[in-house]
Amino acid sequence: MGQGFFFTFEGIDGCGKSTQLARVAEALRARGADILITREPGGPPISEKIREILISPDNKRMYPETECLLYLAARAQHMREIIKPAIDKGQTVLCDRFEQATFAYQGYGRGLDIDFLKNTNNFAASGISPHITFIFDIPVELSQQRLSKIGKGKDRLESEGAQFFQKVRDGYLAAANSSPNKIKLLDGAKGRDELTEEILGIISSYIKNL
Amino acid sequence: MGQGFFFTFEGIDGCGKSTQLARVAEALRARGADILITREPGGPPISEKIREILISPDNKRMYPETECLLYLAARAQHMREIIKPAIDKGQTVLCDRFEQATFAYQGYGRGLDIDFLKNTNNFAASGISPHITFIFDIPVELSQQRLSKIGKGKDRLESEGAQFFQKVRDGYLAAANSSPNKIKLLDGAKGRDELTEEILGIISSYIKNL
Repeated sequence: MGQGFFFTFEGIDGCGKSTQLARVAEALRARGADILITREPGGPPISEKIREILISPDNKRMYPETECLLYLAARAQHMREIIKPAIDKGQTVLCDRFEQATFAYQGYGRGLDIDFLKNTNNFAASGISPHITFIFDIPVELSQQRLSKIGKGKDRLESEGAQFFQKVRDGYLAAANSSPNKIKLLDGAKGRDELTEEILGIISSYIKNL
Repeated sequence: MGQGFFFTFEGIDGCGKSTQLARVAEALRARGADILITREPGGPPISEKIREILISPDNKRMYPETECLLYLAARAQHMREIIKPAIDKGQTVLCDRFEQATFAYQGYGRGLDIDFLKNTNNFAASGISPHITFIFDIPVELSQQRLSKIGKGKDRLESEGAQFFQKVRDGYLAAANSSPNKIKLLDGAKGRDELTEEILGIISSYIKNL
């Protein structure tokens, strides 16, 4: 069994990434693929505990530097305990948010230095990057409409204003623009079935015998 | 009111740093100094939550990279929420462990790259270093004798073996050797009163009108 593949699903809240991840996983499993689904921040127990600190609305005093180091700490554990062992076993890993979220949220959104983030992410992720990152792009207004429809309580990051999410969206667009071979920009306003087919087409070119 | 001073107390477990910090704080307060006592990992609520993850014996699967990023995340919050505001108000800050613990434990002890740690610590600590770091040096055997006398349950880091603590001690000694002006190496096997006087003598040369 060779090395598996690593695909990440990114975008602002309400962009449809989590829905698409579940649909793609189901379709790939139906074709016999060995799929591991995971998410950031989170994954193993230590990273889930870090997630609790990151999303709790109690922690409004968190500084951007703290936030960024916590995301990267969660990633360091997630990569070594879950993602890398799965790839090494030949599994296909589908992860909800990963390194591009760091660059978009903590870099573009919070204004932290992108080169510092790239260097420290490389340390956290053990030098491993996704084979393909799917970015689901939607306007900030659509994101906010979709979130208000769900009507659940907002976590610490979801409570940020539209201006913050516009910067995050700009960050995602800049990343897609600068790395078109590794990052596939998708129109998150498209229909669900069409998006799922588009993603399956790209993933199928990586996984043999699907 | 001018800027305050920042002194840190470092060394392996059982070296006497916490006892000396309390004694020095008491003596300085008796002389009218405005003292803030704090510790790492910890300080503000977010950093104390990170501390719980770091010390819990449940988290034995924690990787060195995760550990190092969690310590630095706790420091980023501690510096911005507690230490820097106190220094800016003119308080004298006494902190139980700080940057030298990162270099000794995560660098020498865990084998992580020291240049990476220095760079990331600089980001976390907002470029602020202690005016003086006091390192209490004791042999690892004495550390273990003192800890077994206390007889309390060991946390995740205290559960490491003698070989690990020897590397940490070597790291502290190397730091003291390379920065004799900023780091004062003290013999932690000395008597309590003698050590307190030695530290007070050094601190008094910084704080005016004591």
